[in-house]
Amino acid sequence: MSVNQQILLKSYPIGAPTENDFSLVETAIPELNAGEVLNRTIYLSLDPYMRGRISNRESYATPVALGSVMVGSTVSQVVKSNNPKFSEGEFVVGSDGWESYGIAKAENLRKLDPKQLPISTALGIAGMPGMTAYFALLDIGKPQPGETVVVSAASGAVGAIVGQIAKIKGCRAIGIVGSDEKCAYVVDELGFDACINRRTQNLNTALKAACPDGIDVYVDHTAGPILEAVLQQINLGARIPLVGLISQYNAKTLPPGPNLMPLLIKRALIKGFLVGDYLGRQAEFIHDISQWLHAGKLKYKEDVVNRLENAPHAFLGLFQGDNFGKLIVRVGDDPTKN
Amino acid sequence: MSVNQQILLKSYPIGAPTENDFSLVETAIPELNAGEVLNRTIYLSLDPYMRGRISNRESYATPVALGSVMVGSTVSQVVKSNNPKFSEGEFVVGSDGWESYGIAKAENLRKLDPKQLPISTALGIAGMPGMTAYFALLDIGKPQPGETVVVSAASGAVGAIVGQIAKIKGCRAIGIVGSDEKCAYVVDELGFDACINRRTQNLNTALKAACPDGIDVYVDHTAGPILEAVLQQINLGARIPLVGLISQYNAKTLPPGPNLMPLLIKRALIKGFLVGDYLGRQAEFIHDISQWLHAGKLKYKEDVVNRLENAPHAFLGLFQGDNFGKLIVRVGDDPTKN
Repeated sequence: MSVNQQILLKSYPIGAPTENDFSLVETAIPELNAGEVLNRTIYLSLDPYMRGRISNRESYATPVALGSVMVGSTVSQVVKSNNPKFSEGEFVVGSDGWESYGIAKAENLRKLDPKQLPISTALGIAGMPGMTAYFALLDIGKPQPGETVVVSAASGAVGAIVGQIAKIKGCRAIGIVGSDEKCAYVVDELGFDACINRRTQNLNTALKAACPDGIDVYVDHTAGPILEAVLQQINLGARIPLVGLISQYNAKTLPPGPNLMPLLIKRALIKGFLVGDYLGRQAEFIHDISQWLHAGKLKYKEDVVNRLENAPHAFLGLFQGDNFGKLIVRVGDDPTKN
Repeated sequence: MSVNQQILLKSYPIGAPTENDFSLVETAIPELNAGEVLNRTIYLSLDPYMRGRISNRESYATPVALGSVMVGSTVSQVVKSNNPKFSEGEFVVGSDGWESYGIAKAENLRKLDPKQLPISTALGIAGMPGMTAYFALLDIGKPQPGETVVVSAASGAVGAIVGQIAKIKGCRAIGIVGSDEKCAYVVDELGFDACINRRTQNLNTALKAACPDGIDVYVDHTAGPILEAVLQQINLGARIPLVGLISQYNAKTLPPGPNLMPLLIKRALIKGFLVGDYLGRQAEFIHDISQWLHAGKLKYKEDVVNRLENAPHAFLGLFQGDNFGKLIVRVGDDPTKN
């Protein structure tokens, strides 16, 4: 056990990564400092988010430095402990990265009980992917019984759990995957109501068929064309947790149109607004706006065009920014003005 | 007063509308039915949303039928009333459309008091545009004192109010407009902190300079390139009420990338998600997931690759959909499995 296998990041890939971006080395296991724990890696988790860690593009975490060990979640067994909280032989989940032995501080480790759940689940269904599915669906998606929940990458670590929790919550669950084999698994094994093979089916047609009542929640792992197709079928008040943008992780140049990556990184939201939804709260608005106007805290400017026959011309100018202030047409006399 | 001037919709424009899409006619004023009110139009509101009403594309309202009077909000004076709620000479706001005399049902009219506010404000600051600014900013944007609020079309009917309410709420207000004259008005008259001329300034550079602390709220009237630029500068937890998509109303073909129109029409939301925000609620997740697993309500599949040196190859496969289930690497022996 004196040799530690490590996989280091050699270069930041442009576009799709290749095996040449990584290198395998063997090093000695360093000495433990006070309070540290030495772990033997049993399982290493591989996840799409790692693409962001080996990129110089802005992401929600600093990239892995060239020549460093690749980051990653690990399930390990404690080999040696300088910390009273952990003993030799115990199982832990941590972030030791792509290496066969890792040294960790106690606060970065969580103990696992192999009698409760298989230890490997701490990297999947009972780990970060499961937690992603659980909170993205329940906290942002807020699925209600009878609603339709769609998820992309539906046979993957997160997607498979999203659909199953949707079923537990009384929803219709629809998956989108990349093969017929995965489709069959998602429907037959996981109990989704339907599944779409995005490589062989027309997304718009297939979504319409699979979601006759429209889409209430879409847990998005991909952005790109799948999001585009889903948007065409969403229902009033639909919720779309944006969890990943797999479609553009390996893109050399970003697709045209707004890049939604900052939305994910900054946990921000875009929400459609129609004033008609607020008619019931008109009194509240009139109260505040009148008060602010009378107090001189609000100013306004009107761009008044005379005579009804000039309405079409004035209307066209709205899209050129010709108007300056609120555009209105004076169709007839205003007896309130002298 | 026996002649009613009306502007009818003649054709659904493809791309930018022209005056030829409308026609002016003169008709007789029809007789009033029981309960109805006859109004003489004083002011007609012209608003960008009307572009959606003269289009065959899906929108949040049915389009104006060809040959019908164009829709629009109006401020009018009651000329004749068959309804006890309204008397001759009173002022009302309604939706009589592009015509000089309109007939309305009482439930579609709201009385205006000319002593309280100028009657024309019922189409602007104290009407739908004001209400849009008020609720989009306060209810979705939720601006906090000290935050930065950006608004496009900032000298327009809605934008001007958004920025001023942002100031009332203790925020930094930044406008985006289409001319230097509008910039000056927004800053000097309305009290915005800064304004950007989108036709002469580089949006990214100018936004960075005007928003040194990033952007917390963006009230979007345009989508397209302005949204794209704003997204590059948003702060953690930013909120973007999507109120309009002026940039694409007149587009003959939609720009590539996800069309956000359904988001607006359906008042739906997209929200970025990172699991790290939920670490404090891990116990809640572990509790539910363990219970569901033990109850057989959740299934999972692991795609296990042996040996650390195979990690890079397996990782690359993630982006091709090669894995089937949660991808993990078995780096060393698992003593919990016999």
